[in-house]
Amino acid sequence: MEKFELYILGCGSALPTNRHFATSQVVDIRDKLFMIDCGEGAQMQLRKSRLKFSRLNHIFISHLHGDHCFGLLGLISTFGLLGRTAELHIYSPKGLEELLAPMLAFFCRKLSYKVIFHEFETKEAALIYEDRSITVTTIPLEHRIPCCGFLFTEKPGLNHIVRDMVDFYKVPLFEINHIKNGADYITPEGEVVLNTKLTIPATPPRSYAYCSDTIFREKIIDQIKGVDLLFHEATFAQSELARARETFHTTAEQAAFIAREAGVGKLVIGHFSARYEDEELLLQEASAVFPSTVLAKEGLCVQI
Amino acid sequence: MEKFELYILGCGSALPTNRHFATSQVVDIRDKLFMIDCGEGAQMQLRKSRLKFSRLNHIFISHLHGDHCFGLLGLISTFGLLGRTAELHIYSPKGLEELLAPMLAFFCRKLSYKVIFHEFETKEAALIYEDRSITVTTIPLEHRIPCCGFLFTEKPGLNHIVRDMVDFYKVPLFEINHIKNGADYITPEGEVVLNTKLTIPATPPRSYAYCSDTIFREKIIDQIKGVDLLFHEATFAQSELARARETFHTTAEQAAFIAREAGVGKLVIGHFSARYEDEELLLQEASAVFPSTVLAKEGLCVQI
Repeated sequence: MEKFELYILGCGSALPTNRHFATSQVVDIRDKLFMIDCGEGAQMQLRKSRLKFSRLNHIFISHLHGDHCFGLLGLISTFGLLGRTAELHIYSPKGLEELLAPMLAFFCRKLSYKVIFHEFETKEAALIYEDRSITVTTIPLEHRIPCCGFLFTEKPGLNHIVRDMVDFYKVPLFEINHIKNGADYITPEGEVVLNTKLTIPATPPRSYAYCSDTIFREKIIDQIKGVDLLFHEATFAQSELARARETFHTTAEQAAFIAREAGVGKLVIGHFSARYEDEELLLQEASAVFPSTVLAKEGLCVQI
Repeated sequence: MEKFELYILGCGSALPTNRHFATSQVVDIRDKLFMIDCGEGAQMQLRKSRLKFSRLNHIFISHLHGDHCFGLLGLISTFGLLGRTAELHIYSPKGLEELLAPMLAFFCRKLSYKVIFHEFETKEAALIYEDRSITVTTIPLEHRIPCCGFLFTEKPGLNHIVRDMVDFYKVPLFEINHIKNGADYITPEGEVVLNTKLTIPATPPRSYAYCSDTIFREKIIDQIKGVDLLFHEATFAQSELARARETFHTTAEQAAFIAREAGVGKLVIGHFSARYEDEELLLQEASAVFPSTVLAKEGLCVQI
């Protein structure tokens, strides 16, 4: 199966602690790296992960709070020092380019590559990235400021050839792509060999949804229905429900409720408040509602 | 002796590595903390050090390269989240306030405390900070952009009372301060007791000089003559002398030459290029010229 992995670089919330870096993660899809959020220290964590800097061309910023984007300047600057030439694309809610431009002009004067900003609306889901194998769509969230999550979805793949059958019918090479796309095969003698005999169905497209930061809102469930992996913020335990509402964050139990209702394959919770010495309580509360829950952790890698 | 310590938070150079954070250090003088430079991750390192955030009211920025100041936004923001009320003073070459103001206005909208910028000229040494016990003076350096080091100097202390003698002569309490300041004591019978009999001289004022980033220039020697501790950048080994000149940095051997000629007590070298897997070579080259050399290292604490 093609690579589709999530790496956690940082999963703390606004206050960094000795255990957690600010929010940042990388989705590795067939060796293309997509960064989601870029809190302070993201570049150090990226280096630790041993993911290749040169494979990262797209960064998605969920919202303009410092703990989700203060690492951008250092990262951009380091890429410059490393002599990068490929364009770096940054997707974010409105305002980031205007804020960063003077800093980049001053601190990254002779950048060897272009930084290209793409700003998106946060009210409606929108396709913001597409290549041959995936799409990235925004997931409108509800936080104190405009904020979106991101849905990474593989494009439907081709059917897999059954080698023995293809050999048996002596299918010529130039027919193979048609067959992968679903065509039947007609032998020189006019016999129709059904596609279902020659192929097995493509691996179902996989998907990953990132939802942080947000107050608990059931309306996101529709958009993330059936994703293989969901990252959802779980800043607080249930005892801090009032605080969660007040600050537009989610409790672990609420995150698990979303995961269960959306029927996701697995839930990773993160964006932990600094008040928790460890996150066992959050894990317990979430697992009670949705057993396939794991705690995010710096260095964690989850196969999708 | 009163506390006067240097803590290294980060001692890498522009490219962060898995071993070193970008430049930042803290001078702890009688529990007042003074930060020098604030590279990305400084707030995380500060937390690790267990130094109290609330004791830090003054930050000195040597020059406006990202690896010396990209940590400021995160630090300022975190102090705000912690409900700080005390003013935070930032001393830097011209331009920092103008660059940071729009970022602070956006990301730190409702800051609970004031950030006050003090910008200094970098051509001439200038007194930029003074309190009851110390002064901080800039040390003009020569880098690719305007840059200064900082000289922390204790003010001369009072003489120490010799308790036995003071008791013997029954010196009344109200005379003690005069005597600490050097006065003789005259007994009710008119006998003059010389100050030298009643006191031992004050501890000589201690001093710490921070010199980074800079090309090798002997002219700084005069200003840092006899300091107890010198931090000097040593970005490169001697084999990279040409590169050091080109980039306005110093080699370890050159740093040691400065230390020797200035007759300092101890030399800490840092700001290591990312090219060195470890810094043993740099230590060897420096120690050959000035034996009292140590390598900076994250978490290192040096008593002054």
